Amino acid sequence: MNKIALLGPGLLGGSLALALRARAPQCRVAVWARREAAVEEVRAAGICELASTELAPVLEGADTVILCVPIGAMPELARAMVGLIEPDAFVTDVGSVKAPVVEALLPIFERAGRGRFVGSHPMAGSEQAGLSAARADLFEGSVCIVTPHIGISPRTLEAASDFWRLVGCEVKTLSPTEHDAAIGLVSHLPHLIAAALTNFVCTQNPEAVDFCGNGLRDTTRIASGLPGMWTEILASNRAELGSQLEAFIARLQEVAQDIAGGDDSKLKEFLTNAQVRRDRLIKQRN
Amino acid sequence: MNKIALLGPGLLGGSLALALRARAPQCRVAVWARREAAVEEVRAAGICELASTELAPVLEGADTVILCVPIGAMPELARAMVGLIEPDAFVTDVGSVKAPVVEALLPIFERAGRGRFVGSHPMAGSEQAGLSAARADLFEGSVCIVTPHIGISPRTLEAASDFWRLVGCEVKTLSPTEHDAAIGLVSHLPHLIAAALTNFVCTQNPEAVDFCGNGLRDTTRIASGLPGMWTEILASNRAELGSQLEAFIARLQEVAQDIAGGDDSKLKEFLTNAQVRRDRLIKQRN
Repeated sequence: MNKIALLGPGLLGGSLALALRARAPQCRVAVWARREAAVEEVRAAGICELASTELAPVLEGADTVILCVPIGAMPELARAMVGLIEPDAFVTDVGSVKAPVVEALLPIFERAGRGRFVGSHPMAGSEQAGLSAARADLFEGSVCIVTPHIGISPRTLEAASDFWRLVGCEVKTLSPTEHDAAIGLVSHLPHLIAAALTNFVCTQNPEAVDFCGNGLRDTTRIASGLPGMWTEILASNRAELGSQLEAFIARLQEVAQDIAGGDDSKLKEFLTNAQVRRDRLIKQRN
Repeated sequence: MNKIALLGPGLLGGSLALALRARAPQCRVAVWARREAAVEEVRAAGICELASTELAPVLEGADTVILCVPIGAMPELARAMVGLIEPDAFVTDVGSVKAPVVEALLPIFERAGRGRFVGSHPMAGSEQAGLSAARADLFEGSVCIVTPHIGISPRTLEAASDFWRLVGCEVKTLSPTEHDAAIGLVSHLPHLIAAALTNFVCTQNPEAVDFCGNGLRDTTRIASGLPGMWTEILASNRAELGSQLEAFIARLQEVAQDIAGGDDSKLKEFLTNAQVRRDRLIKQRN
């Protein structure tokens, strides 16, 4: 990679710029932002060679282009950029939902015959947002899911793997729909549950909140995520998420019956299974 | 306080010994453990003046006695100790459920006419357990809920406040039943939900777990708590917890309807409320 264009200087775009500066100083990095104030912020942070609200200078000569804007803004940005990119440029995005993003973006590049696109989802983030939360090590040791579509060229897939490894990710692949089912389960559903639990606890007995400990704080942490961004993410995965939520509610109803039934051995089995499984989730970190 | 007896050398008993050594070195601390191996561990850790499997030497001359055993073991221990404590000793416990504990323990001390008892619940802990996880600063900045029962003497309540402040807690008071309702909501229900989510995600699609990020890890952290201990806690608060879970399920069903309905403004309002409320939970930390 010679020149990398990052479109959108939020938490992910900003962290990519910092990671590239630290791990691949030979790469030239250019950042596009929609607003002039954001460009000024990028310049003040000194994290790239060029920052602009104009797409042309950012994309010129870039062999790698990463869309780091909210998923709702991606199709418009793809249409605006497709005529400006190098014909052979590798293009990917960082959206948390993949089937709708790939369905919307891939035809834009294919019809124009410019840009080699594949969807990506780096599983790195924070409930904090914006350039001020960016970190050079955000991607280190985290998983990036690349989502090859039918007919993708091996060269495009390889470019995606190379890019994400360069910033510190472990790369795994899933089809776009497999991705949305898996991430619905490990990310979107937990987000919904954390938000629902926060709303429930805080409205059910506002005074109880004075007695909140670290347990509730951790269980609800992701509910502090940006509501606008998460509305887009969850709405984009509506069908999958809806059926997972229905299935989860059915499981909770069984738990409620076990509790009402007073058979503590069932409760203990339920908690023991959870402990064993949770400890496995932790071990998978490394 | 002159001599403090800690009964049970787990995470809480061990952390109390460490906190007292650091913050009140003038106090003599004695630790009772059921098993000789645990006594050896306490001695090896050098965290108190005296450690024994015998209650008599630990309780002799103690003006303060703290029961740090699982709630299921408390009544038997209270009966075993009541004849051995100083008649005017202040006695409290660290159980996470209060109405059943106070109902079981208070009559033991009142009938014997020995010991001034009040229930306590220091809101400090960890999903880790045992003496090896003990920390001198475990209680610092955390809330301890003291649960005065009807007819408690001001002197007993004051002794409880003094003790918990000595180890670094902020002291709040609730009646035992108010405590169980509030803690059901901020601790027991989240535990149940974290365990249910862990079980659901890991059984629904075991491969998806490979893509688990920090969001799911934090949301499920408390599910790593000791199953035996948590079965006792949740079962002791069965009625309250059961009705809270029913109400939470009803709320989730509304969320599921909103998602299926496709009105993203409702989803955004739900997530915005959650974000605002979660940020308030965090601010209350200080």
